[in-house]
Amino acid sequence: MSSQNVLQTWFSQNFKIVQDDYFHFLRFKSISTDAAFKKEMQSCALWLKDYIAQKTGMKSELIETKGAPLVYAENLTAGSNAPTLLIYGHYDVQPADPIDLWENDPFEPTLRNGNIYARGAADNKGQIFYSLMAIRSFHELGIKLPVNVKFCIEGEEESGSHGLSLSLPDLKEKLKGDALLVVDFDGFDKETPGISLGARGIVALELTLTGSPTDLHSGVHGGMAYNPNRAMVQLLSKLWDDKGRIQVKGFYDDVVVMNEEERGQFSFAFDEKSYSKTFDIDAIGGENDFSLAEKNTVRPTLEINGLSGGYAGMGFKTVIPAHTIAKLSCRLVPHQDPEKIIKNLTAFLNENVVDGMKVQVVSFGGEKAFRSSTSSKLATAVAKAATEVTGKNCKKMLCGGSIPIISSMMEILSMDVVGMGYGLPTDDIHAPNEHFDMNRFEKGFLTVARTLELL
Amino acid sequence: MSSQNVLQTWFSQNFKIVQDDYFHFLRFKSISTDAAFKKEMQSCALWLKDYIAQKTGMKSELIETKGAPLVYAENLTAGSNAPTLLIYGHYDVQPADPIDLWENDPFEPTLRNGNIYARGAADNKGQIFYSLMAIRSFHELGIKLPVNVKFCIEGEEESGSHGLSLSLPDLKEKLKGDALLVVDFDGFDKETPGISLGARGIVALELTLTGSPTDLHSGVHGGMAYNPNRAMVQLLSKLWDDKGRIQVKGFYDDVVVMNEEERGQFSFAFDEKSYSKTFDIDAIGGENDFSLAEKNTVRPTLEINGLSGGYAGMGFKTVIPAHTIAKLSCRLVPHQDPEKIIKNLTAFLNENVVDGMKVQVVSFGGEKAFRSSTSSKLATAVAKAATEVTGKNCKKMLCGGSIPIISSMMEILSMDVVGMGYGLPTDDIHAPNEHFDMNRFEKGFLTVARTLELL
Repeated sequence: MSSQNVLQTWFSQNFKIVQDDYFHFLRFKSISTDAAFKKEMQSCALWLKDYIAQKTGMKSELIETKGAPLVYAENLTAGSNAPTLLIYGHYDVQPADPIDLWENDPFEPTLRNGNIYARGAADNKGQIFYSLMAIRSFHELGIKLPVNVKFCIEGEEESGSHGLSLSLPDLKEKLKGDALLVVDFDGFDKETPGISLGARGIVALELTLTGSPTDLHSGVHGGMAYNPNRAMVQLLSKLWDDKGRIQVKGFYDDVVVMNEEERGQFSFAFDEKSYSKTFDIDAIGGENDFSLAEKNTVRPTLEINGLSGGYAGMGFKTVIPAHTIAKLSCRLVPHQDPEKIIKNLTAFLNENVVDGMKVQVVSFGGEKAFRSSTSSKLATAVAKAATEVTGKNCKKMLCGGSIPIISSMMEILSMDVVGMGYGLPTDDIHAPNEHFDMNRFEKGFLTVARTLELL
Repeated sequence: MSSQNVLQTWFSQNFKIVQDDYFHFLRFKSISTDAAFKKEMQSCALWLKDYIAQKTGMKSELIETKGAPLVYAENLTAGSNAPTLLIYGHYDVQPADPIDLWENDPFEPTLRNGNIYARGAADNKGQIFYSLMAIRSFHELGIKLPVNVKFCIEGEEESGSHGLSLSLPDLKEKLKGDALLVVDFDGFDKETPGISLGARGIVALELTLTGSPTDLHSGVHGGMAYNPNRAMVQLLSKLWDDKGRIQVKGFYDDVVVMNEEERGQFSFAFDEKSYSKTFDIDAIGGENDFSLAEKNTVRPTLEINGLSGGYAGMGFKTVIPAHTIAKLSCRLVPHQDPEKIIKNLTAFLNENVVDGMKVQVVSFGGEKAFRSSTSSKLATAVAKAATEVTGKNCKKMLCGGSIPIISSMMEILSMDVVGMGYGLPTDDIHAPNEHFDMNRFEKGFLTVARTLELL
């Protein structure tokens, strides 16, 4: 029996157990961005640490940080001559709002049409869990791990990785290895696997505009008090010109346009029509002068992720709100500096707001983009493993999303990085009805296991 | 003892009883705009009807409408030779959001610094209740009412008066009289009473912009899907030019500028500095070319009363929302037609939105402005009563707010209208910590009672 057959057999025989454990993991409301869920975060981390120790044969521990605890695990029995692979993922998830659009309780995983619906089903509990199952299979099959393996599973990927970020210098020795595998990416499409050799950086901030300190009646005060909602739409509308170019000073200064050779290393194929159809989108954003795939990967963006001011519930309330809030984020490309972008964006907001409106900007910080080698040992091994597992040639990709901590890990730990995963843009991650399926779970499991052998 | 002394004595002796009953009235969560409070609305109307019958000597009844029931009461014992006064008010209130900014439960009236804090304390439960107390005092003192009195207390003033509006033609006979007193207005300032001879009209609508039918990840889709929040701020920012003039086609076509004689009938005195200081407002809106008092009374406005799209809670969520909502309203001046304004505003929104964004506009309807004679018998009587009660010369005013139903009542019932009240712009009506006080309650009570005698 080939090693893949052995692994497949183990997976089939343990399918129910693995799925039950995965469901258990999904039930934790490990929402890192909202302090109300701090206890659930702790319970999730503790359960995961114990689970790893009991089921995978790795030593595991919780590492406290200034933020959420880190789940760390290792099996170094391959010895000092074998390479060491660090695998990164996260146990925290995005908030489940708007909850009323979910067809099931987002924290009660539900099988429907062959999919598993739950917050975190794909991002990232599903993907990190199949990676752990690869180690578990070797352990239960009595196969010695061919490489040393370390797992770094953090609890703040969805909220800026602040704890891990601050602890990284201290963890340098513990986390060191030959390469970093980040199992938090999409594949190329439903059939075709892909590895990601870059992701965009991110900065995020919250903007509050305040008129009067109290809500005002829009009849009694209408025409007199300047409405913060009006100030907000006028201010934010100035952020783009009519070609979609972001108007913040120096925003594009450090953006380097790829040359043909660099472009040639990646798959930029992207069917605009099929994209619009899949997501039922008729309005396309971004900069007019670039293709859809470029806008999404090698160009920076600015998004209004949240707007809230006044009364937007049922019916109507004739109010001039005291204040109005916008949540803004930018996706950054290599060489853009998060601090500089936040500084310039903050300056833009202060300079362009109507006179007399009080402006408050709170930064959520940010991280740089990363870009790594397309021909590292790890990239070659993962691509080969994925090709074997799926029977389709693995594509090399760039990712539009962000894994904020990766650029710091690359820098501080001096490692090659490869992003892998079997996510799809249709998985509704960060949205209602996020889902994943056990078929892709198995492919992920097999790809990680096979990568360990190929390294 | 003068009649005012008799009334004052009655008020002093019954202060505790009156205040307790007023508090009882305030405890009903009679929020008309939100269907969730329908039962509370019914309970409030029923209690009020029974209370009037038991305490004021008037016959009372509930009149069902297509919307909330109307509380109607009358005492016609003055006979057919005496004039008949119709008094209008409302038992519904605005929603209490944002609830966390209240210092007490908005539906548990609380005395603090001489004020009574509760939703509806002023608008309109306080003001309609002191009007009812005027009738109660005559009843308990055994004084025959000098005029016939009818009360029309509706339950949808805060949500468009749809029920009463539809029922008005059928109620023409029941409500007919010589003049209409609307006890839902502010005084001139803390010491000086005022009567209002006009209020602005209103239209309101809800605008929804939809991109994809589902929320999207702002990394995976950022630069591709057009963010509805971006479309919203760009669209709404086009509603005004840089002089604050509203850009909707034909918006000002029917606005008639007052001549000097007309202007001379009203008090437009308004201290801009003291206004800014009182409300801690540094940014002034409206059209640049008009004074503050004019902007607020004789000029139409457009306000964004609510904005909501994406995630605006604690922390951050990197989402491109499926849709985003804005609640818009306009205050109208005489001759502006609500239907035409809604039609043109809807057209503006559809024509100016980015291509491909789905637009939905839901109208909440509207009502015309009203303007009435400054020298009617009722205006003369109320002004004289208020001057006697307060010792300050009563001012003639125009109101920036709207009592949507008044223009229809004037038209259908062919009556003179006078607005009175002891509200103040600092009462925080429609806002957290709405309040009123028993001192102004007493002035209102005395003014209504004295008006009945003077008519």
